[in-house]
Amino acid sequence: MQKLINKPDQVLADALRGVAAAHPELRVDHQHRVIYRARPKASGLVALLSGGGSGHEPLHGGFVGPGMLDAACAGEVFTSPTPDQMVEATTVVDRGAGVLHIVKNYTGDVMNFEMAGEMAAADSGVRVETIVTDDDVAVQDSTWTAGRRGVGITVLLEKIVGAAAEEGRDLDAVLALARRVNENGRSMGMALTSCTVPAAGKPTFDLPEDQMEMGVGIHGEPGRHRVPLTGAAEIAEQLVEPVLADLDFQGGPSIVMLNGMGGSPLIELYLLYGEVATLLEKAGVQVARTLVGNYITSLDMAGASVTVLRADDELVRLWDAPVNTSGLRWGV
Amino acid sequence: MQKLINKPDQVLADALRGVAAAHPELRVDHQHRVIYRARPKASGLVALLSGGGSGHEPLHGGFVGPGMLDAACAGEVFTSPTPDQMVEATTVVDRGAGVLHIVKNYTGDVMNFEMAGEMAAADSGVRVETIVTDDDVAVQDSTWTAGRRGVGITVLLEKIVGAAAEEGRDLDAVLALARRVNENGRSMGMALTSCTVPAAGKPTFDLPEDQMEMGVGIHGEPGRHRVPLTGAAEIAEQLVEPVLADLDFQGGPSIVMLNGMGGSPLIELYLLYGEVATLLEKAGVQVARTLVGNYITSLDMAGASVTVLRADDELVRLWDAPVNTSGLRWGV
Repeated sequence: MQKLINKPDQVLADALRGVAAAHPELRVDHQHRVIYRARPKASGLVALLSGGGSGHEPLHGGFVGPGMLDAACAGEVFTSPTPDQMVEATTVVDRGAGVLHIVKNYTGDVMNFEMAGEMAAADSGVRVETIVTDDDVAVQDSTWTAGRRGVGITVLLEKIVGAAAEEGRDLDAVLALARRVNENGRSMGMALTSCTVPAAGKPTFDLPEDQMEMGVGIHGEPGRHRVPLTGAAEIAEQLVEPVLADLDFQGGPSIVMLNGMGGSPLIELYLLYGEVATLLEKAGVQVARTLVGNYITSLDMAGASVTVLRADDELVRLWDAPVNTSGLRWGV
Repeated sequence: MQKLINKPDQVLADALRGVAAAHPELRVDHQHRVIYRARPKASGLVALLSGGGSGHEPLHGGFVGPGMLDAACAGEVFTSPTPDQMVEATTVVDRGAGVLHIVKNYTGDVMNFEMAGEMAAADSGVRVETIVTDDDVAVQDSTWTAGRRGVGITVLLEKIVGAAAEEGRDLDAVLALARRVNENGRSMGMALTSCTVPAAGKPTFDLPEDQMEMGVGIHGEPGRHRVPLTGAAEIAEQLVEPVLADLDFQGGPSIVMLNGMGGSPLIELYLLYGEVATLLEKAGVQVARTLVGNYITSLDMAGASVTVLRADDELVRLWDAPVNTSGLRWGV
């Protein structure tokens, strides 16, 4: 296992030390494994909390900051954080206007966030609402999911809803917006290689060099099918076609993310995006904004995913609003 | 070869199409393979041009934009751009105040930029000055280098000198600043795996799973020595020690970059930075600013490098100045 780590069971704790050292604008609670903005947002604003298993960086800790999340709970690699982490974070970030939990649809995350929401409400009277993202068109159910998996739209949602929270919208409005973003987003991913979880010490799955996994999840869980490795143009087709088949993206602006799984270099992500852009143009999708890079990853997996959000002028305006995190930063 | 590409000989052209599609704020000259700011800087300001082989993204194309480069010439993967690309770009970006060429110390780049500078001066009367970066402490000479290789400091230099150019400093002052940054920067890198050049189709070098290459270059050229794979704490020591041994970083602020080689996930880079930060603190180095992520990569190579710049208040101020590129963005 060729990794920059000390011991497999120390990966998260050690990585959080690095985050704390690199980012004075963040505050890391090492005991609870929560990353906070060092300067909380103003009183009376809705707070946003997310979290999930580690190994998807920059999601979620890299999206903590003005214009996006107020905090992120970090679980062990590919393992949900625990309810006590979430309760602690919920209580800390509440500014009196309630907290939106942003949860990717994986069974462990959904269960733990639900429990934490109830506990925080019961113990501290914090009002909690929850959005569960489920944008992955690849499969209906999966290894760790009932229903569709929550993947790339989570990044776009955290950005757009984060902007709305900064504007002072109340919790109902923030939740409604989050639902709108999730309902209008679709994703599809693929892998060229497996990832290797440190605690396992070997690849999660075996993938012959001449094959690729279409519709893979962000933990290396199986996708739709394993097919022969092809060129980027064909890969783009296999990613874009199921996304466009699932929702009509015509008639308005779209926001598109070409996301790397962690092990594919940026030159390949741009190359693949060139093919994706061609297909979207042919299909009459009007791409208003684009993001190319590693945003929701799967450790060292080589591969990529495409996320398309059917937006409108309001969503594009919120997308363009200032954001100041290590993973996304503009307008500040 | 598990890559998101079409054909090996189309990688650069295809990737540039993706860059153009993703970034309306850039202008891509596909014929000359140059990436420009879509809106040139104001007349009378010194322009900054860099470039080199592709495969190091976001360097250099990802650093084109206000506050950094005016243009970047893209060579084929790990191959210098040609003088005619550089002459074209030099002529286009000149705003009447001359052009600084920022060149990493590799024989092909140095030779071609030198030729291009002379040609641009002779043909169009553009005043050109050149800074050759050579911050890699690993080896004195290397496969493609006489003298030390130019690596991570190039990123910091493009940012800091870019800010100075925006302030209106003349070419002599910009060159002097570039020399100051280069002279005060040191880097050291390591690899856990080889990279695979598309045209070669197989790893550049063989590295057993239980070994690592210390002092590796950004093209997979050999480093100081091959040693048994160890934990991140020991890797950090082997990176930091030769950097600190080469220059005294005490007594002022330093800017530190923990750079990923392309194939190592962000969680590992943060983990390694945690170890680096501990060592720097022990050594009395005052870290004023930190950058953790993939900035000067080597395709899909797993590994990392450390760059430390002995700065001062002026360099930190220029570092903090607004920059608006896809690879580095803040203050805008």
